[in-house]
Amino acid sequence: TQQLLSETSPEAPKARPWRVTTADRSVRKGIMAHSLKDLLNKVRDTLILADKPFFLVLEEDGTTVETEEYFQALADDAVFMVLQKGQKWQPPSEQGTRYQL
Amino acid sequence: TQQLLSETSPEAPKARPWRVTTADRSVRKGIMAHSLKDLLNKVRDTLILADKPFFLVLEEDGTTVETEEYFQALADDAVFMVLQKGQKWQPPSEQGTRYQL
Repeated sequence: TQQLLSETSPEAPKARPWRVTTADRSVRKGIMAHSLKDLLNKVRDTLILADKPFFLVLEEDGTTVETEEYFQALADDAVFMVLQKGQKWQPPSEQGTRYQL
Repeated sequence: TQQLLSETSPEAPKARPWRVTTADRSVRKGIMAHSLKDLLNKVRDTLILADKPFFLVLEEDGTTVETEEYFQALADDAVFMVLQKGQKWQPPSEQGTRYQL
């Protein structure tokens, strides 16, 4: 992995593994990203969101993550949820017991 | 992150990630801030409060946070609530079960 890391500039944050779920928690994917922008791009590709606008919130409490600064400060175990227009964050318990953690 | 930190003076408190919610708990955003003044400015910009006066309380029990000293002593997991004129802190249970954690 040393070679991969050295491709980025020395100051660039190291890519970290993130978990991203859809709004209904039916799909959950692991995605590597070194920045919020990087994650947004990969989420778009991975979850096939095409050109529909979306944003990322924290799965645990719906906190919107929209700055690189805040993204970099997140703990390694943060789980994201993708929300598209009209979708709203809901706590896990209201979506049945299937995905309770 | 070393470079980011060195932009502030050595004595300046390090920026920390905070979560800030609106009075009705419908919006929750992640914001980095190194001081109460910094957070107030960013809350104004992020939540588009324009020139309406507001203040910050702790989301868990409505404690008003108005001094830098108290702000710096807060734990990393503190969640703020923005209150504007006429708005009052309410415990989560009185706003339905939607945002109970």
